[in-house]
Amino acid sequence: MWRLYQFPLCPFSRKIRLLLAEKNVAYEMLREDPWSASDYFWNLNPAGRTPVLAHQERDIVLCDSRAIAEYFEETVDKSPMINGTSTNRAEIRRLVALFDENFYNDVTAPLLNERMKKRIVLNQPPDSRVLREAMKLAHGHLDYMDWLIDNRPWLAGSTMSLADLAAAAQISVADYLGGIDWAGHEQTRGWYAVFKSRPSFRPLLTERMGVIQPPLHYAKVDD
Amino acid sequence: MWRLYQFPLCPFSRKIRLLLAEKNVAYEMLREDPWSASDYFWNLNPAGRTPVLAHQERDIVLCDSRAIAEYFEETVDKSPMINGTSTNRAEIRRLVALFDENFYNDVTAPLLNERMKKRIVLNQPPDSRVLREAMKLAHGHLDYMDWLIDNRPWLAGSTMSLADLAAAAQISVADYLGGIDWAGHEQTRGWYAVFKSRPSFRPLLTERMGVIQPPLHYAKVDD
Repeated sequence: MWRLYQFPLCPFSRKIRLLLAEKNVAYEMLREDPWSASDYFWNLNPAGRTPVLAHQERDIVLCDSRAIAEYFEETVDKSPMINGTSTNRAEIRRLVALFDENFYNDVTAPLLNERMKKRIVLNQPPDSRVLREAMKLAHGHLDYMDWLIDNRPWLAGSTMSLADLAAAAQISVADYLGGIDWAGHEQTRGWYAVFKSRPSFRPLLTERMGVIQPPLHYAKVDD
Repeated sequence: MWRLYQFPLCPFSRKIRLLLAEKNVAYEMLREDPWSASDYFWNLNPAGRTPVLAHQERDIVLCDSRAIAEYFEETVDKSPMINGTSTNRAEIRRLVALFDENFYNDVTAPLLNERMKKRIVLNQPPDSRVLREAMKLAHGHLDYMDWLIDNRPWLAGSTMSLADLAAAAQISVADYLGGIDWAGHEQTRGWYAVFKSRPSFRPLLTERMGVIQPPLHYAKVDD
């Protein structure tokens, strides 16, 4: 059976959990917190990052969330998530990179540092300037998503794709950490509400990360 | 014709230039410096990053170096660079991510900041502590490459792949900026010497970035 090394607020692990659920691939989860990763984990992945997906019986270790997504796209037919012509597929991959890199660096990473790492590891208060800047940048990203959703049924085109999973994964972590102000983003809010009601999303919404509690609206499907 | 937006020391643009040359795809180059990107460029790529590859006649705009590489893998048969079984392909993509993310963040990005941005844009001297730390981390990455090359003909397996192009692109920029100490890394040095003599690599080695000059050994094929 597949074994997923992850931690609850890792947006890249969340993307893979959504993908595996949509594709109906069974797996068990092991928790690997980034600030206390074991030597065993570093041996599995020299990049030292979650998610890692391992299959002991088949002697397979997959690292890097995009490499993992491409692997399941190639090996599991159900629910294709990098679909269409080569140009469509390039558009899906462009948006995945936009959320994995720009949204993550601008919004998710500073929120994780201020609200998770400082709380759990460093025992420091969050820097409110950094939080404000992350929330400001989040608005810019949500504006762009609003525009995409005005023009297309799903972020990358006519069907749900890995771009939607990547975006929902980042937003879900940012929302958990209180970094998303939904006012003025009705299009993205509507798109996200549809997502929250999917069976693939429910397990993420019920999970909690230690002492850090999400805002009240976080797990509400109709909010 | 394809039009590549890039700048000479962008390692991700270099990866794509190597790929296009190996695949024999013709293109013209436009320079887009990261500190003075035009509105036109931001419209092409909301992520604001090079490389971007555009084809006006076919109305195609490709952004993100991994999305661009996958596109040409799917559309051009010559010189496959993400080849083999799904597990082999996952290994290639894992290593591409390792060089694009870990090597870049540990080594190339700090070198570019200290030796390019501070010189050309900020008019400040480089911070020698940051440079030392980047060079120390480069040794760790080269140790891992030495180990890979001890165990495989090419970084990801039995044939040249996108992993080799990604690694060579990062190393070539780090080497240009004087950040690679080759002592003790004979395996990687031998692998890189083979690379430097390839026709796809020659144009990169003769290019210069304004006032910043590379060390003497940089463009020597036998060094």
